[in-house]
Parts: sequence; structure tokens; C-alpha cells
Amino acid sequence: MQKERLQEKIILGIDPGTQIMGYGILMISYDQKKHKQLELLQYGVIRLTKYKQHELKLKKIFERVLGLIDEYVPDEVALEAPFYGKNVQSMLKLGRAQGVAMAAALSRQIPIVEYAPKKVKQSVTGNGNASKEQVANMLQSLLKFPSQPSADQQLLDATDALAVALCHHYQKATPARQAKSWKAFVADNPDRIKK
Amino acid sequence: MQKERLQEKIILGIDPGTQIMGYGILMISYDQKKHKQLELLQYGVIRLTKYKQHELKLKKIFERVLGLIDEYVPDEVALEAPFYGKNVQSMLKLGRAQGVAMAAALSRQIPIVEYAPKKVKQSVTGNGNASKEQVANMLQSLLKFPSQPSADQQLLDATDALAVALCHHYQKATPARQAKSWKAFVADNPDRIKK
Repeated sequence: MQKERLQEKIILGIDPGTQIMGYGILMISYDQKKHKQLELLQYGVIRLTKYKQHELKLKKIFERVLGLIDEYVPDEVALEAPFYGKNVQSMLKLGRAQGVAMAAALSRQIPIVEYAPKKVKQSVTGNGNASKEQVANMLQSLLKFPSQPSADQQLLDATDALAVALCHHYQKATPARQAKSWKAFVADNPDRIKK
Repeated sequence: MQKERLQEKIILGIDPGTQIMGYGILMISYDQKKHKQLELLQYGVIRLTKYKQHELKLKKIFERVLGLIDEYVPDEVALEAPFYGKNVQSMLKLGRAQGVAMAAALSRQIPIVEYAPKKVKQSVTGNGNASKEQVANMLQSLLKFPSQPSADQQLLDATDALAVALCHHYQKATPARQAKSWKAFVADNPDRIKK
């Protein structure tokens, strides 16, 4: 009798923007020999340029992220979150895009962890200044997806999101500051935790 | 037999911040003589300083706004939205706070309209540079609430939110650009409109 693989965790990585939003979903599981396995469940981009109204873009982000959460039921959401930008206007819009994506996770009681872009690149490629193509190539050799994402500019937003999920997985493998966040959350909100 | 008043509309005004968030709910109705009446349903503030974690603040904003929406079932949400701020960091945080508040409305299919602070003050007091106290005093003479909000610094965030709701009501009374937004939304999303 073949044993089922033991699923450890599903991580949804999101790279939210106001023009295009990338997402990537990773499953971490154990095979029969208890070896950890990384598996790509899904990745893609949500194009927002076709929606002219800013509120409509936000609505689409919220609905699509909620849709992904309800379909894949991730244990954690990892967000690529730049802390600096060109100007206050673009940061306000980016903040809103991040906010609605986060709200989708929050509405399902899923913890969110943020990572700066440099941290993600460093964690995945060993180089904080790696190009999007380098990140995509590293992911491809790790996760063996069918297409070559580095050849498609738009898919590079999806691999960026996947990189955040992978970065989050790597963080959790070592004792991390982030582990405390959830603990702190539990301590602050005993009544909000589903037993 | 006494006739019920005909309710026209409920407007939820929100002034989202990362430290304190104000809200105010207005009902517009008609009395027996078909005179338009403005009624204050609720107003208050959500204090966020006690939550140290940024994600937790956002979670609270989302939950509280959703709670208000589910309790009062507003027809429209009006948001006080500054477009400029001190620096990119604070704008990112403000954008996130706005984003989760908007997501709460979006998740219930309620249209959102934004107003710049100057526009709100202009619309309510006739002076775009009016102080918070002047806004509060004008609201008090219009809506006749029991307490004197201008005496309580924290309540001034609540009256600010109420002012956005009132500003939105005034806008709707005259042919406005904003009226087109909902129309555009309907045109873009025929399948999303509850018939």
C-alpha cells in the first residue's frame, strides 16, 4: 500500500501592485522517506490595467486573493512589501493594493508575513540585488515548472510572488523573528484563534 | 394612523488612520410632509494605538468596518482620503489602512466614494480651511447630538468621519461626477449587481 504524502504547509505568496499582481502557491510536504518536498501548486498574475477605476482595481485584488485563499486554503500568506517608492502618491496606491490583499487574508484569519524585496532575492538566490530573471531561473531549477517564466515578462511578477512564498518557507526553517508574530497575535487575541 | 418615515439612504463616513479611525453614520429620510431629514445613527472612533503590530491594526480596522456595515447596512461608503502626506512611509501605512477599510465595503458590494479633506470642510462649513472644531460645531447645529464633540479631542475624528458622510450627501443632492462612478461600475460589472 502506498502511503499518502504528509502535507506540512501551504504558503500563498503575493506581490501586490496597482497594475499587475503576482501570486504563487507552494506546498511543503514530506515523502515516504520523510524527505521534505517543495511543490508548486499554482502561480500566475492578475492584470489590473484593464480596470480604469481605482476602486475597481482594489475590488478585483480583494476578490481574486479571496478566491485563491478559498481554493487552496493556505496556512500562511507571505507578502512582498517594498517600504520605499518614488513618491507619496504611488505609495498611497501601493499601500491600498497591499491593504486589500491583506484584508482578504485577514478576513479568513490567515496570518500574514511581510518581506522586503531585497530580503526575498537574498533568500532565494543568495544575492539581494538579483534580477527578476535570476530569481525566475533559480525557482525553475528548484520547482521544475513546465514553461520558462524568464522568457515572459509578465510571468516574472508571478515568479516574484513565488519567491516570496519560498523566502517565507526558508525563514520558517530557521528560528525566526516572524515566528514570534503569530505567537504575539495569539497572545493578543485568544478569542480569535480557532481551536 | 401614523405613517412611517420613508428612508432614502444610509451613508457610512469613514476617516481611516493608523492610530485612530473615525466613523459616522447618517440616515437621510423623508417625513410625512416629504421634507428631507438628516438623522445621526451612530458615530465614534476606533482606537488602534493599543495594537502594537501593524497587521493587527489592519485586522481591527477590517473587522470593525465590516461590523458597522453589517449592523447599519449603508447604501454607500464615503471615505476621507488625503492624497498627500509627510513621507512615503506614512503614506504606505495610510494607504493600507484605507485599503482594508475599502475592502470591507467592497466585500459587501457597497460603492465607495472618496473625498479630499479640503473638499469635506468646504462642503460642510463653506470653508476649505475650517478647523476640526468648526466642522464639529456645524455638525452639532445640524444633527443636534447630545454631547459637545468639540470638547473631546478624540471625538473630533468621529465628527470628521460624519462630515465626510454629510459631504457625500450634499454631493449627491447636486448632479455630480461621483454619480457616474457607480454607473460605470454597473456597466463594467453587470454580473456583480444584485437585482
